[in-house]
Amino acid sequence: MLKIYNSFTKQKEVFRPIVEGKVGMYVCGPTVYGPPHLGHARTYTNFDVIYRYLMYKGYKVKYVQNITDVGHLVGDGDDGEDKIQKQAKKEDIDPYEIAYKYETLYFDAMGKLNILKPSISARATGVIPEIIEMVQTIIDKGYGYVTKAGNVYFSVRKFKNYGQLSRRTLDNNLSGERITVADDKEAPEDFALWKRAEKNHLMKWNSPWGEGYPGWHIECSTLTKKFLGKTFDIHGGGIDNIFPHHECECAQSEVANGQKFVNYFVHNNLLTVNGTKMGKSLGNFITCEELFNEFDPMGVRYFILQFSYRSPMDFTKKAIADASAQFEKIKDAYKKLENMTHGASDKPTGEAEDILKRITEAMDDDFNTPLAIAELLRLVKIVGSLGEGEVEKAKGLLGVMQKVEFILGLKFEGEEKRSSGENEEKLMDIIAEVRSKLRQEKNYALSDFIRDKLQESGITVKDKKV
Amino acid sequence: MLKIYNSFTKQKEVFRPIVEGKVGMYVCGPTVYGPPHLGHARTYTNFDVIYRYLMYKGYKVKYVQNITDVGHLVGDGDDGEDKIQKQAKKEDIDPYEIAYKYETLYFDAMGKLNILKPSISARATGVIPEIIEMVQTIIDKGYGYVTKAGNVYFSVRKFKNYGQLSRRTLDNNLSGERITVADDKEAPEDFALWKRAEKNHLMKWNSPWGEGYPGWHIECSTLTKKFLGKTFDIHGGGIDNIFPHHECECAQSEVANGQKFVNYFVHNNLLTVNGTKMGKSLGNFITCEELFNEFDPMGVRYFILQFSYRSPMDFTKKAIADASAQFEKIKDAYKKLENMTHGASDKPTGEAEDILKRITEAMDDDFNTPLAIAELLRLVKIVGSLGEGEVEKAKGLLGVMQKVEFILGLKFEGEEKRSSGENEEKLMDIIAEVRSKLRQEKNYALSDFIRDKLQESGITVKDKKV
Repeated sequence: MLKIYNSFTKQKEVFRPIVEGKVGMYVCGPTVYGPPHLGHARTYTNFDVIYRYLMYKGYKVKYVQNITDVGHLVGDGDDGEDKIQKQAKKEDIDPYEIAYKYETLYFDAMGKLNILKPSISARATGVIPEIIEMVQTIIDKGYGYVTKAGNVYFSVRKFKNYGQLSRRTLDNNLSGERITVADDKEAPEDFALWKRAEKNHLMKWNSPWGEGYPGWHIECSTLTKKFLGKTFDIHGGGIDNIFPHHECECAQSEVANGQKFVNYFVHNNLLTVNGTKMGKSLGNFITCEELFNEFDPMGVRYFILQFSYRSPMDFTKKAIADASAQFEKIKDAYKKLENMTHGASDKPTGEAEDILKRITEAMDDDFNTPLAIAELLRLVKIVGSLGEGEVEKAKGLLGVMQKVEFILGLKFEGEEKRSSGENEEKLMDIIAEVRSKLRQEKNYALSDFIRDKLQESGITVKDKKV
Repeated sequence: MLKIYNSFTKQKEVFRPIVEGKVGMYVCGPTVYGPPHLGHARTYTNFDVIYRYLMYKGYKVKYVQNITDVGHLVGDGDDGEDKIQKQAKKEDIDPYEIAYKYETLYFDAMGKLNILKPSISARATGVIPEIIEMVQTIIDKGYGYVTKAGNVYFSVRKFKNYGQLSRRTLDNNLSGERITVADDKEAPEDFALWKRAEKNHLMKWNSPWGEGYPGWHIECSTLTKKFLGKTFDIHGGGIDNIFPHHECECAQSEVANGQKFVNYFVHNNLLTVNGTKMGKSLGNFITCEELFNEFDPMGVRYFILQFSYRSPMDFTKKAIADASAQFEKIKDAYKKLENMTHGASDKPTGEAEDILKRITEAMDDDFNTPLAIAELLRLVKIVGSLGEGEVEKAKGLLGVMQKVEFILGLKFEGEEKRSSGENEEKLMDIIAEVRSKLRQEKNYALSDFIRDKLQESGITVKDKKV
């Protein structure tokens, strides 16, 4: 029985999907104005494991992720330049080229981490008509207002459930958080649904309120409604998105749809670098490219999964190096099992079955990957002490490892196997030895037979040796 | 001086971009309802080389490609089901999941062929407001009409330039081509700008003409305008797109924009498989996945470039195998140069400079890749006869090869091991035959020696056969 920690109730709850056997899941994707970094690596690995485990449990999962390619302002609220347009100026290309460039880099990096593509990756700019319709609905219902300047805001005070997710009341909003006080807002806590485009703004669309572009929060409310319906199962994101982003999503969607937005809100924790927050201005910003230049992406993934998605994670080079070294040992165990069984895994029984059971129990308990990994390491220890004759046992253990490969998205098989070059070399060595022995035995007929066959096949590698 | 064959004028013309140093290029992308196939491999390799060569010439190229994720009907005209929605029913998932799945497979396959991503990959569903605006403009100018059924058509007879690209007059349209006669069309040659959605249609948007979706042609007119402006430099696609697709694009854009649509229309030729047209119904449909299971993608790319983009290309397995074998020799030459120079290339002089000159002359002549390859093979021959001491010469030749790598998008640096699966199988066959012969000769010692050696190496393939 799968339990998920729900940010709404701040406790673990039994997971019950709306439609039996199916799950609708939405995770806030990247704003595509810069290279993917360690924060992306963590967040999307965390949700990839959730996606994988739901599939492992037999659910048909529709996993939607957005690409924010417009409307996310530098201030992270309602002020500043559009992040994508700002980067476009810097690189002297079209903002759409910026968005596509960094969307591509994002998916490339995630692919290296063995993160599965979502079922649908949807761009904010792909749902402008639906955004405009939802904003209009919010206005019609009396929760949105249009200003003289042509902006549309959500009137927070009118929505009684505001704070349901973040537990922030309007009062502590105002004291605790820097809130933009745009000139034309009725109240400082109101947030933009639609922004009037300045003259030089490049990404803009016609709307009932003049040429403009969507506020940052509205795209997620629109995309979830379009692809997952008015109420859906799981909404994910980083805890830094709880307020204001997800709080605003809830408000918009509940007003527009007149029903509950989402059943389970799942948030992964932040990361620090050598104990401090990661940030461009802090000089400790680590891109995936830098990371992968130094470490095997599978080692990075293994490192990430050593932490519960709900724990803070501190990144240090030493910690990743240690994790990578440990991961190599797991791969060695896998190789041993493969060699012993000639790759033939079997249904786990006995000890192997117990371990698999404990791994799924760990995962059922709010996706407890560190505990699952502890069990995996216990398995590795057993593999280490396996004697040559224990092939049947090895087959069951291999079966467990293959399931873990899927669930955690780790690749135990080294890259070297996939390129069969190694086998080819071994085979050539064997053939060379056999020919040499045949010649010693003066069996020239068979020795020449081999030579002719090789020539026939156009195999010239290491001819001299043969 | 670069010359490009322009389908408008049916002759090679000196290429002169609208803005000096910059090129705007648009190529019709895939309709994402099925796996990428040999046809995609050819078309997007052809245009990738054009993109690369323009960059090599120093142009800043904005290369836009579309993803048709809505509105391409099974009839390829104005009738039949939406191709994506049809596939969605078949796979029992959301049409947006179909579109994203096959978009992903498309780019994966193109990536294996070393095809660069375009500057912008834009989805038809991403420009619905802009499509609606353009359709409205066409109606306003008197070239489009709305029917009682809620469809919007382009009135072909009103547009005097119709046929400017395909040279088809209305009369031979009617005789030569199957044209849908939808009930509500004023004339059979008219084509849909906007289709009213049937009740069960899933991908639809509100419009001034009711809920519906765009006709197939209008997305390209909209995307080019949005990303490249009213008039741009190069529009590409397969020759099968000349009529009706590109002819209709020209009509729509010229009416809506009141100016010339595009300066150079570039079309690549079709391919045949063993002499006949490739088609799913014909049973000779080859997906990229099938292709790459058997052949190294770089061998496939080399094969494609042996043909001018304007020539028909006949695919046979033997021809790709031959091309792949020849390509291996080119890689060997590269390896020899790398070994001789320790990877230090130099500015080409003398013979190397001459070859580079002839290669760029070939490319300047309407991207004549077969001629460029002939020069490359001449270079390979020179490399073959290089003596050990000729390091300086080797550096220049390596410099040429590196430039060719960029221009043609070929990777000379070997991953030759990757494709060694084939040899492995051949070697296993030889070993199996040898063991069988040894057993016939009652040479069990050597037969068992082979078996043990195989086990030792962890090679399990075809165990039984051995």
